[in-house]
Amino acid sequence: MTLATFYTYPIIQAPMAGGTANPKLSAAVSNAGGLGFLVAGYKTAEEMREEIKQTRKLTSSPFGVNLFVPSDDTIEPAILGDYAGRLENTAKRLAVSPGEARNDDDDWDNKLEVIIDEHIPVVSFTFGCPDSNVLDRLKKNGSYIIITVTSPQEAVKAAQAGANALCLQGIEAGGHRSTFQNNDDAEDFSLLPLLRLVRQQVNLPLIAAGGIMHGQDIAALLTAGAEAIQLGTAFLRCPESGAKQLHKQALKDNRFSSTTVTRAFTGRRARGITNDFILQYGDSAPTAYPFVHYMTKPIRKAAAEAGDMEAMALWAGQGYRLAQDLPAAEIVSQLVEQAQQALQGRKRL
Amino acid sequence: MTLATFYTYPIIQAPMAGGTANPKLSAAVSNAGGLGFLVAGYKTAEEMREEIKQTRKLTSSPFGVNLFVPSDDTIEPAILGDYAGRLENTAKRLAVSPGEARNDDDDWDNKLEVIIDEHIPVVSFTFGCPDSNVLDRLKKNGSYIIITVTSPQEAVKAAQAGANALCLQGIEAGGHRSTFQNNDDAEDFSLLPLLRLVRQQVNLPLIAAGGIMHGQDIAALLTAGAEAIQLGTAFLRCPESGAKQLHKQALKDNRFSSTTVTRAFTGRRARGITNDFILQYGDSAPTAYPFVHYMTKPIRKAAAEAGDMEAMALWAGQGYRLAQDLPAAEIVSQLVEQAQQALQGRKRL
Repeated sequence: MTLATFYTYPIIQAPMAGGTANPKLSAAVSNAGGLGFLVAGYKTAEEMREEIKQTRKLTSSPFGVNLFVPSDDTIEPAILGDYAGRLENTAKRLAVSPGEARNDDDDWDNKLEVIIDEHIPVVSFTFGCPDSNVLDRLKKNGSYIIITVTSPQEAVKAAQAGANALCLQGIEAGGHRSTFQNNDDAEDFSLLPLLRLVRQQVNLPLIAAGGIMHGQDIAALLTAGAEAIQLGTAFLRCPESGAKQLHKQALKDNRFSSTTVTRAFTGRRARGITNDFILQYGDSAPTAYPFVHYMTKPIRKAAAEAGDMEAMALWAGQGYRLAQDLPAAEIVSQLVEQAQQALQGRKRL
Repeated sequence: MTLATFYTYPIIQAPMAGGTANPKLSAAVSNAGGLGFLVAGYKTAEEMREEIKQTRKLTSSPFGVNLFVPSDDTIEPAILGDYAGRLENTAKRLAVSPGEARNDDDDWDNKLEVIIDEHIPVVSFTFGCPDSNVLDRLKKNGSYIIITVTSPQEAVKAAQAGANALCLQGIEAGGHRSTFQNNDDAEDFSLLPLLRLVRQQVNLPLIAAGGIMHGQDIAALLTAGAEAIQLGTAFLRCPESGAKQLHKQALKDNRFSSTTVTRAFTGRRARGITNDFILQYGDSAPTAYPFVHYMTKPIRKAAAEAGDMEAMALWAGQGYRLAQDLPAAEIVSQLVEQAQQALQGRKRL
């Protein structure tokens, strides 16, 4: 079983959490010859199963499911209390209270059973690498396993645990950084050096992810040695994407001009469009996932309802300005055409 | 006059300051078919002229000269005093005192006169973009002008000022970040998204720089649309390189495992191998270039003499582990061979 059996074109739609990567988007990308992905994170196992069933009604092509590996952050209550106090400022303005800071395991065990039960062809993991016995069980059940990594060290661990392929996430990527540990120790590798350094140590197929918006860059990363390319923000404004309308609008709103990696929204580092919330809370946000996610959830929800982009999590990669309001199938065919052209146009040195 | 007239292969040796990019290295790269660069920064105009003359004795091929654009940082003495106090810790251990915190313009006016006088074929700038009248004068004198930029905004400014080409420096690059302003406002773009975003707005030849250590990545960046590729760390361990022996050794020393972008050594952000000095002073270092450069200079000098890698500035890009102890000509021919092979590989998606 090779990665290439799951798609016509080596274009993977990133598992964007929070409703963005929904059955419609994933099915549209798979139907267009790419590989669509569903997101298990933040859902119950049964909600995830329901999305798998919906997607199967929309496509007969393979698609993947991404799972969040549970975090083991342990947090001092005083630090969370301090951050809750700061958040009151924005919460009051939106007439809500910060949510209760709590941990959970994202319904991990039940989700694994559904993944087994539904015989998902491609399963990717974010925020860590499950034990070998978990990976072995999934592989015996027919799943192809992708582990998302951000460093050569994580790549080696994932290969040793039995991954079939690695998804390399560069610092240019939008949304959460998929570091195994939630701390500040890791180096923020850009995609090209990450690909080169991992290639020196690991012999698995490598999927390149982060900041890619154009087929010419797909051609570039294939030339650099990637087996396939994963794009998220490039699909964010598609009509099929479940991203909030305000999130889609923010990507083309001239009031915003940059992205920032921040813990402000969830307690884990993630890249989004720089807005007031990031500027106000980015420096004080604790390393506490998913505690902070639950604390800011009512605020983000109220902000979205109030049409307030400044207090929403506007996840976006560094190339977000190039996102287009086009159906996913057109995005895929545009990327394919651009990539073909770039590959055929290559000269000698 | 096009960029390609200055080299056989689109491989540019980065202007690494502090003695690394010396006449021997620059001439060796130009003789091997690439484009070597000398560094004017931290030298007097006459020292620069001497290096130009030496290089001309070693090669009849073109080479470039890079100039630092003077900074206009104005600093509160109290902040500098505070940092000097902190530095005492390391200074005492090495039996020196921190240097006097001072500003200078790096002998800017005199250097421009030497550049005019010596008819330098390729002139690149770091830390900003000179006024149009300066660029016009150099261009009328026959120089091809490259401005180093780190963002689409800087790229547009440099194009408007009259640059012939832009050098795009991604955050993965070693050494100083070539931002126009010395502050924390700018987004740290990785190389591929930077190239894509600049290409949308600027029609000049683009040179890609940052973290590149292998010809396959040269092929990738040419495929992405770069005209030429600039590599620094890849040449750092060459016998011709003037980098300190300890700096060269640090690149292969297993006690180090990452790089960090820090103001600790010079007051401007720069990427180097993470050592004690960065860990100890990175958080408190003020935004004050070249003031901090002069403050830490005696410490760095004493550390190098004492064989203490932990208090030296070990500039390095993210791919530094792949630097090789080979003559520059062999590095160039290896890069060319790897790039050719990658360009001849996979042709369709």
